[in-house]
Amino acid sequence: MDKSFILKGNICHTPVPGQLVIRENAFVVCEDGICRGVFDEVPERYAGLQVVDCGDRLILPGMTDLHLHAPQYAFCGTGMDDELLLWLERTAFPEEMRYADEAYAARAYGVFADRMKRGAATRAVIFATIHTKSSLILMDCMEKSGLVSYVGKVSMDRESPPELTEESAASAAAAEREFIRESLDRGYERTMPVITPRFVPSCSDALMEELGKIREEFDLPVQSHLSENPGEIDLVAELAPWSAFYGDVYDRFGLFGRQGRTVMAHCVHTGEKEAERIKECGVWIAHCPSSNMNLSSGIAPVRRYLDQGLRVGLGTDIGAGSSPSMFRAVTDAIQVSKLRWRLSGSGERPLTFAESFYLATKGGGSFFGKTGSFEEGCEFDALVLDDAVEPCARRLSVRERLERAVYLGLDERGIVMKFARGGLILEKKNR
Amino acid sequence: MDKSFILKGNICHTPVPGQLVIRENAFVVCEDGICRGVFDEVPERYAGLQVVDCGDRLILPGMTDLHLHAPQYAFCGTGMDDELLLWLERTAFPEEMRYADEAYAARAYGVFADRMKRGAATRAVIFATIHTKSSLILMDCMEKSGLVSYVGKVSMDRESPPELTEESAASAAAAEREFIRESLDRGYERTMPVITPRFVPSCSDALMEELGKIREEFDLPVQSHLSENPGEIDLVAELAPWSAFYGDVYDRFGLFGRQGRTVMAHCVHTGEKEAERIKECGVWIAHCPSSNMNLSSGIAPVRRYLDQGLRVGLGTDIGAGSSPSMFRAVTDAIQVSKLRWRLSGSGERPLTFAESFYLATKGGGSFFGKTGSFEEGCEFDALVLDDAVEPCARRLSVRERLERAVYLGLDERGIVMKFARGGLILEKKNR
Repeated sequence: MDKSFILKGNICHTPVPGQLVIRENAFVVCEDGICRGVFDEVPERYAGLQVVDCGDRLILPGMTDLHLHAPQYAFCGTGMDDELLLWLERTAFPEEMRYADEAYAARAYGVFADRMKRGAATRAVIFATIHTKSSLILMDCMEKSGLVSYVGKVSMDRESPPELTEESAASAAAAEREFIRESLDRGYERTMPVITPRFVPSCSDALMEELGKIREEFDLPVQSHLSENPGEIDLVAELAPWSAFYGDVYDRFGLFGRQGRTVMAHCVHTGEKEAERIKECGVWIAHCPSSNMNLSSGIAPVRRYLDQGLRVGLGTDIGAGSSPSMFRAVTDAIQVSKLRWRLSGSGERPLTFAESFYLATKGGGSFFGKTGSFEEGCEFDALVLDDAVEPCARRLSVRERLERAVYLGLDERGIVMKFARGGLILEKKNR
Repeated sequence: MDKSFILKGNICHTPVPGQLVIRENAFVVCEDGICRGVFDEVPERYAGLQVVDCGDRLILPGMTDLHLHAPQYAFCGTGMDDELLLWLERTAFPEEMRYADEAYAARAYGVFADRMKRGAATRAVIFATIHTKSSLILMDCMEKSGLVSYVGKVSMDRESPPELTEESAASAAAAEREFIRESLDRGYERTMPVITPRFVPSCSDALMEELGKIREEFDLPVQSHLSENPGEIDLVAELAPWSAFYGDVYDRFGLFGRQGRTVMAHCVHTGEKEAERIKECGVWIAHCPSSNMNLSSGIAPVRRYLDQGLRVGLGTDIGAGSSPSMFRAVTDAIQVSKLRWRLSGSGERPLTFAESFYLATKGGGSFFGKTGSFEEGCEFDALVLDDAVEPCARRLSVRERLERAVYLGLDERGIVMKFARGGLILEKKNR
């Protein structure tokens, strides 16, 4: 199958936030990996393209997992009785140390990439570890998976265990340059490096300054963490007493979206000033509800962010997030928004299904450019979903079937075809 | 396989709340359906029993789904953008009307019972609908599934759509008696009737009085809903202005545990006085975190209930709960307890994994008597779980494997054998 074809089936997408558009028994055209729109009949000009009849199945845009840690998949779902800083010390850091061993990295990242391939994400923005070679191994695995991804070698030179502390800002910068150059040299088609200061507590000002320069030098995007947990925020205030707020630290060093795309995970406790700066700088927020529950961080005010016009997508945040399922991230986001509405007294309306679906598709997808819906001109990422893997007693509407498939978490079981940029990356003969 | 045998494997249970006991490569003995304990070697007196070697798999107690609505499984995962009273009107009630049609009931309850069979619950306490014959069909299906269950024909005679309103308290009582007598006549081995006023808003005082008499007459347990949602609680206060609090209404009519076992779903907004009455009467609380998120009800103060010594178990509450997975109920309960801790400022510590696991096993199981752990004398309900269905990069401890399997929701995929009261009810040749 080349990158020009037509899928026929029940097409569901959210071109506009909160508006689920459903076209039953319709045709979506992919030409050279680019979506040409949804049609009730095949337009004359595409009459020569192969039509893949997906029958009664659902056809959805590929999703974007906007924040996750590949090395942490090995323990995903364990160590969940701790809060952030303790969890890092007892669970996350000890695992990340293992990636000094490239044989381990090859095995573990292989398992990880295989899981990503089976899931609903066609795009991902991923943390590796401080280890240059292992991070490149992860890039190899991701390239092979067919997903389109950004992978970051993590930078950290303080407030971390010795095994995960780079010797100096200079050596960390050198390692980062090596990682970037080597990854560019490898000529990946769909795997790109991203500047990755772990978070402010683990990066000295000197390192941040270096990363700012490297960002400029290579014109790369940036990913990090922001305002996840009160303890962490206090620590940042101590470490950077000159800062107006947590995000101000990244901004000071040219790592906050003004100069190029930046995604910040969490923003659970972001105040008005930080939110304004996020808006001003065009930073993406990766909302990670599972992680924010597991680490007792709280509930991000996503309704407020959307009302303010901020850019928001969803992340599984493996392994603080305890599920690799993007469908689950969609429902988690809705569920926690309902609890926030009920418990915070803020009057912020809960997210609707269509809004959360938008965040998982076009919301996060926009970090990659134009993808995440079936509008004309989007890069063609799609899932063909057989929701009949979970039997149902009666005929539901397509709208109901979609909501049900997402709430029941049928992504892994139900996805029978998966495309990224028009390339078929997974095909399953289901049952 | 008869009901006397030995399982060998990695045995995990919580005989005491919050204390996970793990015995690797150990033997658990089942004699005539009763657990005889866990041993490092097969005791002399059981030397004649067949040993089923489960290899490196996990052996867990069967779980109890303490609250769910069988008819609602047909739409499970849909209609989730509404709050309780609107959701009842738009989603739940229209579906329940369909069960006037016995052919539909047979099909839908067949799908439901099949799903129950595949899940982690070996016991369940289930709402049907007002329809006597369909409710008996559900009992047939549950009996065949092998699970041990209570099934209630629902009683409701007011504040409901006409199709779901029984004509009078007298006719509702007559139908309830018919249901109970017929279900007893059928001589089920593991399926029992339970008195089921839907909730106070849909039952007149006259009907409640009748149900209290029927309870006494047949000495049956009771299930209903309690203090789920602020709007519902206000309605109860209006409808029963003489009551001290919501639960007081059930108590007034002899339906609140003093006279026999009673389980109340939710208790999200239960105040001190209601909690004291619950304790005094020995009522079980079915905590349903998924449902309480989906309907924006809030987060039940489970830590407080446990500290007060109340009886608590977990329910999926299908279909307001959006997942039939009991593993997911375990993690949902932990996750929402963390959000409650963070958002309510109540200082109530989050639930630990071991505590939530206890709620799902022995906590809810106690409603059925002695079951839900592998202590000597318990009815033998067990799951053999192959957690390797989800590949892992490295060897984890058995403790970690259990937590991971639960967080990743591997129940349906991973259960390879399932026993209730010593009877093998599911066996799967995995992979």
